[in-house]
Amino acid sequence: MAPKLTGAEIAKHDNKDSCWVIVHGKAYDVTEFLPEHPGGQKIILKYAGKDATEEFDPIHPPDTLDKYLDKSKHLGEVDMKTVEQEEKAHDPEEDERLERIKLKPSLAQCYNLLDFEAVARRVMKKTAWAYYSSGADDEITMRENHNAFHKIWFRPRVLVDVEKVDYSTTMLGTKVDIPFYVTATALGKLGHPEGETVLTKGAHKHNVVQMIPTLASCSFDEIVDARQPDQTQWLQLYVNKDRSITKRIVEHAESRGCKGLFITVDAPQLGRREKDMRSKFSDEGSNVQSTSGDNVDRSQGAARAISSFIDPSLSWKDIPWFLSITKMPIVLKGVQCVEDVLRAVEAGVHGVVLSNHGGRQLDFARSAIEVLAEVMPILRERGWENKIEIYIDGGIRRATDIIKALCLGAKGVGIGRPFLYAMSSYGLEGVDRAMQLLKDEMEMNMRLIGASKIEDLNPSMVDVRGLVGGHNAPVPSDTLGMGVYDPLVSPRFNEKPKL
Amino acid sequence: MAPKLTGAEIAKHDNKDSCWVIVHGKAYDVTEFLPEHPGGQKIILKYAGKDATEEFDPIHPPDTLDKYLDKSKHLGEVDMKTVEQEEKAHDPEEDERLERIKLKPSLAQCYNLLDFEAVARRVMKKTAWAYYSSGADDEITMRENHNAFHKIWFRPRVLVDVEKVDYSTTMLGTKVDIPFYVTATALGKLGHPEGETVLTKGAHKHNVVQMIPTLASCSFDEIVDARQPDQTQWLQLYVNKDRSITKRIVEHAESRGCKGLFITVDAPQLGRREKDMRSKFSDEGSNVQSTSGDNVDRSQGAARAISSFIDPSLSWKDIPWFLSITKMPIVLKGVQCVEDVLRAVEAGVHGVVLSNHGGRQLDFARSAIEVLAEVMPILRERGWENKIEIYIDGGIRRATDIIKALCLGAKGVGIGRPFLYAMSSYGLEGVDRAMQLLKDEMEMNMRLIGASKIEDLNPSMVDVRGLVGGHNAPVPSDTLGMGVYDPLVSPRFNEKPKL
Amino acid sequence: MAPKLTGAEIAKHDNKDSCWVIVHGKAYDVTEFLPEHPGGQKIILKYAGKDATEEFDPIHPPDTLDKYLDKSKHLGEVDMKTVEQEEKAHDPEEDERLERIKLKPSLAQCYNLLDFEAVARRVMKKTAWAYYSSGADDEITMRENHNAFHKIWFRPRVLVDVEKVDYSTTMLGTKVDIPFYVTATALGKLGHPEGETVLTKGAHKHNVVQMIPTLASCSFDEIVDARQPDQTQWLQLYVNKDRSITKRIVEHAESRGCKGLFITVDAPQLGRREKDMRSKFSDEGSNVQSTSGDNVDRSQGAARAISSFIDPSLSWKDIPWFLSITKMPIVLKGVQCVEDVLRAVEAGVHGVVLSNHGGRQLDFARSAIEVLAEVMPILRERGWENKIEIYIDGGIRRATDIIKALCLGAKGVGIGRPFLYAMSSYGLEGVDRAMQLLKDEMEMNMRLIGASKIEDLNPSMVDVRGLVGGHNAPVPSDTLGMGVYDPLVSPRFNEKPKL
Amino acid sequence: MAPKLTGAEIAKHDNKDSCWVIVHGKAYDVTEFLPEHPGGQKIILKYAGKDATEEFDPIHPPDTLDKYLDKSKHLGEVDMKTVEQEEKAHDPEEDERLERIKLKPSLAQCYNLLDFEAVARRVMKKTAWAYYSSGADDEITMRENHNAFHKIWFRPRVLVDVEKVDYSTTMLGTKVDIPFYVTATALGKLGHPEGETVLTKGAHKHNVVQMIPTLASCSFDEIVDARQPDQTQWLQLYVNKDRSITKRIVEHAESRGCKGLFITVDAPQLGRREKDMRSKFSDEGSNVQSTSGDNVDRSQGAARAISSFIDPSLSWKDIPWFLSITKMPIVLKGVQCVEDVLRAVEAGVHGVVLSNHGGRQLDFARSAIEVLAEVMPILRERGWENKIEIYIDGGIRRATDIIKALCLGAKGVGIGRPFLYAMSSYGLEGVDRAMQLLKDEMEMNMRLIGASKIEDLNPSMVDVRGLVGGHNAPVPSDTLGMGVYDPLVSPRFNEKPKL
Repeated sequence: MAPKLTGAEIAKHDNKDSCWVIVHGKAYDVTEFLPEHPGGQKIILKYAGKDATEEFDPIHPPDTLDKYLDKSKHLGEVDMKTVEQEEKAHDPEEDERLERIKLKPSLAQCYNLLDFEAVARRVMKKTAWAYYSSGADDEITMRENHNAFHKIWFRPRVLVDVEKVDYSTTMLGTKVDIPFYVTATALGKLGHPEGETVLTKGAHKHNVVQMIPTLASCSFDEIVDARQPDQTQWLQLYVNKDRSITKRIVEHAESRGCKGLFITVDAPQLGRREKDMRSKFSDEGSNVQSTSGDNVDRSQGAARAISSFIDPSLSWKDIPWFLSITKMPIVLKGVQCVEDVLRAVEAGVHGVVLSNHGGRQLDFARSAIEVLAEVMPILRERGWENKIEIYIDGGIRRATDIIKALCLGAKGVGIGRPFLYAMSSYGLEGVDRAMQLLKDEMEMNMRLIGASKIEDLNPSMVDVRGLVGGHNAPVPSDTLGMGVYDPLVSPRFNEKPKL
Repeated sequence: MAPKLTGAEIAKHDNKDSCWVIVHGKAYDVTEFLPEHPGGQKIILKYAGKDATEEFDPIHPPDTLDKYLDKSKHLGEVDMKTVEQEEKAHDPEEDERLERIKLKPSLAQCYNLLDFEAVARRVMKKTAWAYYSSGADDEITMRENHNAFHKIWFRPRVLVDVEKVDYSTTMLGTKVDIPFYVTATALGKLGHPEGETVLTKGAHKHNVVQMIPTLASCSFDEIVDARQPDQTQWLQLYVNKDRSITKRIVEHAESRGCKGLFITVDAPQLGRREKDMRSKFSDEGSNVQSTSGDNVDRSQGAARAISSFIDPSLSWKDIPWFLSITKMPIVLKGVQCVEDVLRAVEAGVHGVVLSNHGGRQLDFARSAIEVLAEVMPILRERGWENKIEIYIDGGIRRATDIIKALCLGAKGVGIGRPFLYAMSSYGLEGVDRAMQLLKDEMEMNMRLIGASKIEDLNPSMVDVRGLVGGHNAPVPSDTLGMGVYDPLVSPRFNEKPKL
Repeated sequence: MAPKLTGAEIAKHDNKDSCWVIVHGKAYDVTEFLPEHPGGQKIILKYAGKDATEEFDPIHPPDTLDKYLDKSKHLGEVDMKTVEQEEKAHDPEEDERLERIKLKPSLAQCYNLLDFEAVARRVMKKTAWAYYSSGADDEITMRENHNAFHKIWFRPRVLVDVEKVDYSTTMLGTKVDIPFYVTATALGKLGHPEGETVLTKGAHKHNVVQMIPTLASCSFDEIVDARQPDQTQWLQLYVNKDRSITKRIVEHAESRGCKGLFITVDAPQLGRREKDMRSKFSDEGSNVQSTSGDNVDRSQGAARAISSFIDPSLSWKDIPWFLSITKMPIVLKGVQCVEDVLRAVEAGVHGVVLSNHGGRQLDFARSAIEVLAEVMPILRERGWENKIEIYIDGGIRRATDIIKALCLGAKGVGIGRPFLYAMSSYGLEGVDRAMQLLKDEMEMNMRLIGASKIEDLNPSMVDVRGLVGGHNAPVPSDTLGMGVYDPLVSPRFNEKPKL
Repeated sequence: MAPKLTGAEIAKHDNKDSCWVIVHGKAYDVTEFLPEHPGGQKIILKYAGKDATEEFDPIHPPDTLDKYLDKSKHLGEVDMKTVEQEEKAHDPEEDERLERIKLKPSLAQCYNLLDFEAVARRVMKKTAWAYYSSGADDEITMRENHNAFHKIWFRPRVLVDVEKVDYSTTMLGTKVDIPFYVTATALGKLGHPEGETVLTKGAHKHNVVQMIPTLASCSFDEIVDARQPDQTQWLQLYVNKDRSITKRIVEHAESRGCKGLFITVDAPQLGRREKDMRSKFSDEGSNVQSTSGDNVDRSQGAARAISSFIDPSLSWKDIPWFLSITKMPIVLKGVQCVEDVLRAVEAGVHGVVLSNHGGRQLDFARSAIEVLAEVMPILRERGWENKIEIYIDGGIRRATDIIKALCLGAKGVGIGRPFLYAMSSYGLEGVDRAMQLLKDEMEMNMRLIGASKIEDLNPSMVDVRGLVGGHNAPVPSDTLGMGVYDPLVSPRFNEKPKL
């Protein structure tokens, strides 16, 4: 057995001419890989000659080094006792965060999905929060996603027998307890050391489908391994320029039991998210699928780098090929107007997800719920409403949001960030409670709208006039006028007690 | 005469195997009742072996123990001198509240209904305020109720002789001074030790009808006993799964002189109100009608528990039975769309209350005033506008709100929370002044709109275009853009006096 | 010559059985007048036996005592040296105000009408500010008046020769420099010791018409006396229950040269203004025309008292009588819907002022500019647009507001509060500058919209689509959602200088 | 060689009877010029007998004195060592600004155009910031310009091959990299000592056109001299009352290679900008083209003065003359409604810029993007869409804004202030980065909307329903109602750590 390497030896290789790094107690020579690193050389060189584990972990699946670095560059075990512990720069913000963690509310104090977000915002690492919570440009679409549900109001029916309420349904043939699925979100280990497998377990507990992300922190197989026998998973796919890689991924997913293939069509290039960039996370992002060299302009930040493997030439012409390589139902994720939904029907896919990628791609893309309200009447007009399953995602926080989508004709909704926040704040218990809260809300609101089963939900139960007028932005305020107006006040309490 | 029990004896029974509590100087063995308690065991066990009076009082009518606990469990009088006084945990918020009570504005400083709310918010106990003021989910509907009146504007007529203004009217055959009634609200003793009877007295003083709530803190008979001979009361009814109980209640109400039966149809399950839950009140809620066992999932909070007796299977099929058991006019309270109003006419009931339960049930239910604007033109189209009396409740704070409802075709409006706040802040005098303020506003505004009597109010006097566009939510703000804009400023005062 | 009365003698008469007061160095026995005082007894009794001049002055024209108190009650001159000076209660708010007056911006720092309001708000006495600036109920209409102009946008024409711009026009036959007039506002001495005559002088300087208010602090004759020979005044009239008084007033005004009679039709009862009431001014209001006894319910505040003489039975039937008693053109002030404008044309009056009384009467009355946009197309449809002159008032602060009104078809606009604020802050110079600023804005904006004379202004120059949708109130905000959103931030400045 | 003048000699000429000033080390006798100074005498007299360079520089092109002051008044060089250095009044605001400059974020921290504005606001001189950032009246239009883009949302197409994205286009025959040009803005030296030539260099680097302003701080020739051989410039023109001056300017521009003539038609008089006036800059503004005497009313501020040479009689009649004096394509800058666009086509000009002058002229003028949405359908209806090139400017901050304009039919957009802010904060590097950021955004957003070249952009890709309803201003808020509502809160963090 070879003697372990020492920290001193490794520390010599601290530059781009010879660059060694330690990950999980093993040393690697990444000198030649430097120019190929999708996240840029800079972030690796920061750890040249040092232990990079903490930085490496959340953004690379564990099999990354095995898959992408030639065995000859695996230098073997390191005697970690000999590695100098780097003293971290004192960060007052981080100190405050650690203080806040001690004061974290109990899980029982979270009464709705937004509560998890409120907790996560204060207990998550700054860069992790920035990565999860950021959106494109001015984040208008990201906020609109939630906002748009507020334009849709209910027309409930009373005196309907709702003693028994059944809100289970079927998605791509899988029977689920409640019409939502856990949609794919990247880099789960930023929020929790066990990453996406936490969501796998939560989804099983509540009998909902999990969609496995391409850009997961866990490896695909780890996530599938965490699945229970009676559980359904789908695969979210970013299509690689090298179709053979894509084919391998799809076939592997099918062989491992995935029951649906969701091809992301709204991300020919990954969006710029300025909050993320500002948080300093940007230059450290990564991606494990890249096969390309270093012709990416790294000055554009991680978003560009991370997306370098994605094929921007993907087009409708590719759909038949996908249909030919798998028996899984195929769903296009990220469709954003009725024209493309009609084309999807014609292309023979099994479903679409109306989505703007959580507001992370094109700012001023419309909310999925608004697009849904545009799409369904036209599908019904053509008698096509059963030819395809329509899903939506983005902004869903309440069971009333789910009910609105179903009234309008969606088969189900995807929920992403809220479960990440629940997981980041409280782990599996958080995810469990978040899903249970949705079920409780669902049961109550089905009753209150006067529906005892999913089929009872229909367009006459919602008032969508608020969507008709488009997107209004009020006239800019008159600051002088407002400045001189005395707002009315309530009675003033005395300053001294009455005697 | 039996010797009185001592505190020491009772204190031994402080667990779920033997649980005694003191209420109003008498001891009760509630061990067997524990699993049946609609509010859950936890809240009782907190007082096991102790005096529970203060907690018990506001949420149980005084006849509760007689009605629901077998006489054999009534253990007799307690020598209260022997009962240890529990020292209350020091609560700085409560100290501040007590301080504020000393500084309370005089009643004469309240000029409108919202002023009472402003005072109540600062002088009421936190849990009581939370119970009264909370709404469902994000409280969007609760606020919309008030907001919606702001979408309706007046088209007043001038040069109308308004020397004499008469705003009295008739509701279900009762002549009233002004077209509002005191609608049913639960747990009046949270706000005032005399509970709902305060409202009975206020209603008499101003000759308006009081609707008696099922979930009152006072017993039904106490509230009826507080009635003056010339006064009218109605009964609000939650329908029990056990119809024989419901029948008994209805017959009793009719025999005691109630002149209207308002069946709540918007609450097959009582809503979750998160502010209420957060205030810690939730686990202490209660309900005195429950006959069920303990199959309620208590983890869902008091709202679920308190509603366990309500029959979620209540449906249109039950209406003929109600019409058969009483001669009181029947009004469906909580109708929320025109389809159900038409069905109500066909079912032969005498009225409906368009209501969303004060925003406490289904969030994103529309405001009653908006539903009214949808309903009346269709009733008139069919010539049905006189076949049924239409009432609305929710969000009414000004006489202008009442006038808007009447212009659109309502027979009258229900007002709930404002009188609770007036009562909680200033007792009967507060309720009296609140009603007088509405009368003063009513007289003035009838004059200003150019109407000398209720019949003069008509749809041409209101501009309802603001309702047509549905519910708009403006585009999310551009925070970067706003952040860099310098708002205009008014002239700056000098820093030093001019010499 | 009678010896002067002493303070000691007068001080004995300090109760309602014998009540003497000093006004401007003379004593009066008002014992018998007490029950008739329109502002209630309370305010007089506060000064019983004392000097009431300071309180009396701003709210009673100087001829009040001569006109309304029998000569026998005029007790003669007082030796003011013998009258005890009352030490005023120390009022920290008043101290702060006096401090602010020393720091008042120079007049040259006021660049627009709102600037005067900003200064007035800080230098006026609290009660005076409250009286001028308050509106009805929630002051929604008061703010909407200004707001509504923001719904109207311009469609300017370019490449029009605007070297010479002439914005003079004609109102009721009077040639004026600019299409606004000084509308009638009550109690001018609250803002300036010389009261309404300051406005008379300002109006002359800029050749615009002044409308003389019934409820002026100066007497009618004082205001007319302040007029220059070439100057035009109109009379605003509250119609008295006793028509002989009204007739006398109208005939007197005509004989003194008034050129227009503006009958207020939107105030059968004067509005409640809660800010005013809260400021403690309410119980001190007054009115000098009252002839009635004390059957007014004083508990309703000054607004009710002050309006007791106004005839709420005034109706369309009275119009022919007005036309018969004067040759002055008659204008109805306060019309609020197209139906009443048409009726006014039929009644043969010469004009109407679309107005909601500055938002001081019926809350949720629509803005005049909105009513104008409703009225003119219908008048034009009937070919009646020249049968009557249409004016508007309320919320006008900029020349662009005036231009909008004229584009839509108004003959001119009334401006009230802004000149009061200019007068209160800077006296006549303030009024002069305020009017000059409007002229400067007018010249510039006529040029910029592409109009060289008033006749060039037409409806195609404005975009009024913002008025069509009625009054929208956005969906209540989602406070949880807003609470967890991180607004985007601009680059952060470093904390330490770069070295 | 003449001996240098001394400070003492010059200091004697410190009044309007003999007024000498020093500029860039030379003395000038401006006594006779005083009444002609377009910015008024006051500002010159402030520097009588002193060194005026610092004040003079940013607002006068360097050739001003040569051009407008007779050689006989050029007194020769001054021995600057003999000139007393004036001690500047201590200005705490200025001190703070200088402090902020030391802490300025690095250029790399600016991720979008608004970031430069945020930095500029804090590092620019107060008067310079006020001049650049101010708008007309209440600055409603200025803010609306940006706001209006938020009413337009995208309808992106997916599965389009966007591997190669080409967003270059052609403007007035010039091939440019990206469809924006640097529009004309006045007084560049307020922001940077090298003034407009910084923009010239930036424009060259990114291959976009620069429009040269009439009111530049640099002389026209300096700006042209800074041009690279392959670079295109246009001329922005304020038309002088003296057409011979205008003709000379146009001919000179053409001879120096300008490729387009943009005649400003929205400024017959330069707007009042109150923020600018309030910042004290107003009385120091200037203009170098003035030939007029002193009949300008200086009390109106610099805006009036500076615009005195502009011909307010310019009209459609003048267009043929312009077409006759130059071969440059002529574009009307500042058109604001469809009627005038049609007229422009008929007049035979080559283009129009829909613009409201950056919100600096007529407040409540509509945004260019809104006018564009009105104009294009009517041009297309007539088949005129290719007869003229339509540009817009105002409020553009993101590539998505550019894409919206191009989808609707604009040929390109003008961007002004953002480059001034980038230049003022970071000089040429700032301008370079600002342009690069737009290119990066452009490439990404072209991909995300599904367009690989400019021609792919079309009206079906945008949802403009938000523009249809006109300009809505929500109902004024109910301050009492808001005041008593408890916003919902997220879970509260504990005050003490859990043990």
